[in-house]
Amino acid sequence: MMIITILTDFGMADSWVSVMKGVMCGLNPEAKFIDIAHSIPQGDIKKAAFQLFTAYKYFPKKTIHLVVVDPGVGGDRKPIIVETNDYYFVGPDNGVFSWIYGQDKFKVYKINVSHLPRFHTERGLPLISDTFHGRDIFAPVAAKLSLGIKPKELGDSLHQWVSFKLPEPVIIGDKPKVEGLTGEVIDVDRFGNLITNISRAGFESLVAQKSFEIRLKDRIINKISTSYQSTTHEPIAIFGSSNFLEISLPAGNCAHLLNLSRGSKLYIKLSPMIH
Amino acid sequence: MMIITILTDFGMADSWVSVMKGVMCGLNPEAKFIDIAHSIPQGDIKKAAFQLFTAYKYFPKKTIHLVVVDPGVGGDRKPIIVETNDYYFVGPDNGVFSWIYGQDKFKVYKINVSHLPRFHTERGLPLISDTFHGRDIFAPVAAKLSLGIKPKELGDSLHQWVSFKLPEPVIIGDKPKVEGLTGEVIDVDRFGNLITNISRAGFESLVAQKSFEIRLKDRIINKISTSYQSTTHEPIAIFGSSNFLEISLPAGNCAHLLNLSRGSKLYIKLSPMIH
Amino acid sequence: MMIITILTDFGMADSWVSVMKGVMCGLNPEAKFIDIAHSIPQGDIKKAAFQLFTAYKYFPKKTIHLVVVDPGVGGDRKPIIVETNDYYFVGPDNGVFSWIYGQDKFKVYKINVSHLPRFHTERGLPLISDTFHGRDIFAPVAAKLSLGIKPKELGDSLHQWVSFKLPEPVIIGDKPKVEGLTGEVIDVDRFGNLITNISRAGFESLVAQKSFEIRLKDRIINKISTSYQSTTHEPIAIFGSSNFLEISLPAGNCAHLLNLSRGSKLYIKLSPMIH
Repeated sequence: MMIITILTDFGMADSWVSVMKGVMCGLNPEAKFIDIAHSIPQGDIKKAAFQLFTAYKYFPKKTIHLVVVDPGVGGDRKPIIVETNDYYFVGPDNGVFSWIYGQDKFKVYKINVSHLPRFHTERGLPLISDTFHGRDIFAPVAAKLSLGIKPKELGDSLHQWVSFKLPEPVIIGDKPKVEGLTGEVIDVDRFGNLITNISRAGFESLVAQKSFEIRLKDRIINKISTSYQSTTHEPIAIFGSSNFLEISLPAGNCAHLLNLSRGSKLYIKLSPMIH
Repeated sequence: MMIITILTDFGMADSWVSVMKGVMCGLNPEAKFIDIAHSIPQGDIKKAAFQLFTAYKYFPKKTIHLVVVDPGVGGDRKPIIVETNDYYFVGPDNGVFSWIYGQDKFKVYKINVSHLPRFHTERGLPLISDTFHGRDIFAPVAAKLSLGIKPKELGDSLHQWVSFKLPEPVIIGDKPKVEGLTGEVIDVDRFGNLITNISRAGFESLVAQKSFEIRLKDRIINKISTSYQSTTHEPIAIFGSSNFLEISLPAGNCAHLLNLSRGSKLYIKLSPMIH
Repeated sequence: MMIITILTDFGMADSWVSVMKGVMCGLNPEAKFIDIAHSIPQGDIKKAAFQLFTAYKYFPKKTIHLVVVDPGVGGDRKPIIVETNDYYFVGPDNGVFSWIYGQDKFKVYKINVSHLPRFHTERGLPLISDTFHGRDIFAPVAAKLSLGIKPKELGDSLHQWVSFKLPEPVIIGDKPKVEGLTGEVIDVDRFGNLITNISRAGFESLVAQKSFEIRLKDRIINKISTSYQSTTHEPIAIFGSSNFLEISLPAGNCAHLLNLSRGSKLYIKLSPMIH
């Protein structure tokens, strides 16, 4: 049984997600669908890219990840397949796979729409609409991949693709006199946790043997917590489920409290440990 | 493997949708469930009817479409099955199948509740509650249909049913001197796109060889776009995924901008093409 | 085919629910997932407990109910399995199974995390994160149970567990001179219906042969309706789908109208029937 995950900004009030599933059922009745998320804000490619990154690797090998956050539908952006050792990704070439490109070896294919099934024409609909490539291109391609058809039968190798620059923390000062680290918020989750671009490994290697202050807005945090529960009602720092440093408000919404959002900066000041 | 789609106004915070699935699993463990939408506004039969219309035909033949937008539960409205050549529909007789009735040959059956499984009584619950016929009538019937049981074994032919009048555009002036067309908004989607009742085929046959102005509020649009992306921040006109004319705001919410909603009127003024 | 239901407060904008499903697919590709709800308010254990109660018994025997409403993740609260005659329940020991404990014979097991699969370490992730036990403990355990592994192979018997006191109605006056009944709102659903702790059976045995007034705020209701539809725009009383007395506003939101919420009190005044 092949798994197809689905990540969109379609919401849950319209029928679009189900239409893609209906199309895929028609091509591969055995496919198993798992929704990653559909409440991505309209056209928010960066949010979708990060959510995909947090999820894709927990699925069995050969899972097909279908992503339709596609503000440029009907325009020039290409429909693509990304193939890695373990997974397929299908969606628009608008940067939504940026977090994937850094993870593993990969190949990119431009989908050749003339290879697509002609079931729409049988019903008097245009083969490819201007506005819903999720239904007319991406879902059929995902279903074909789930049947074992290879990407090269569905498209042609592509040697350039759109990728946004992943936000990297910036080290202040030169080794061994590193003064600190500037990071930024890369995602805000449902609970208002501020997920930063500072990885556990990066933090630990830098902070080893030093004391630190995490500074954001007028707040200073100088320890790492291991639970969202706390005796204080002040923001805490914790390593989240994707191993990035998070700033979180126990039993509250940290993003609202501090009025911070994606792109907001934080600074980690390092000092020699005083014994 | 039989597919049962589910369309409700139950939202995602309560357990009702899952309860219907649990009941259906008990009757047919092999059924495959696909959610069409559950965020239909409370009791909004017209929204549900249109969402069903946009989705049903993309599913494989013999799919069962279960619709529970049922503000009259417990009252006089009948529980029905609609059978077309390709699909079954199960739900209340309150007009929610109005868009289906115009599409294909169909038969309507009034569900005979005495034919329903008696599993509730085994648990000390009333056979049919007053408030949740989705669980007690519609889901069991959908599951029975998915097992190959015929509608006539579950109910009796019905010769009258509730159907609301589908909104039709009105042509102004007589051929060949057609002056224009009055249409209306039949749905507003998650992105704020205004979906009108003007079909691509109707528009193209009328507008052929003429210039046109689409007028709504104080806006005038005189071309059809083929992508939601645009260099302007003004509303555009585009044929959407169901082949109806849509008015859309690039990277914005057109319904909010223009303060329009379902039922709002638009006018298409036609003029001889000047060469 | 084994069913695993999933109930969380994770919402639909982040990838967490899908991550748990991905993990479970990797352990048991045949498992069938059914979402109970994911829009439980953040950390609202009581809402989750009641939603679970309204849903669990409609699923086939041997269904596994996975509940991750877990504000104490990373702290001291124990991860547990609850086994009843018909079902398994997996989640945190924070009271979320309080409504289950009163229903049937049950055993509780504390999950032994050293028994968990080590697939995370293969990918360089910590075996158990501090923040996402849904992914790292509960989902793997649910998948193992779905494969037929017994609770005692996954944990050790536990003889104390967290349970909140279920709200019980209070009878005013002594038999046979019962004057009335004080109840309270235990849940508010999507439609704004106020679900009370007064069961149909309890109400009927008490009210038999008497007239009654249901009093809440400044409203008095003196009959039980059998449909949400009404000719009035005033609150009505009706027995809901779980056989609790509900106060409902026809075509409106009763909770908003009366500004009532969970915990709000109502009083049922009884009087001898006057013939």
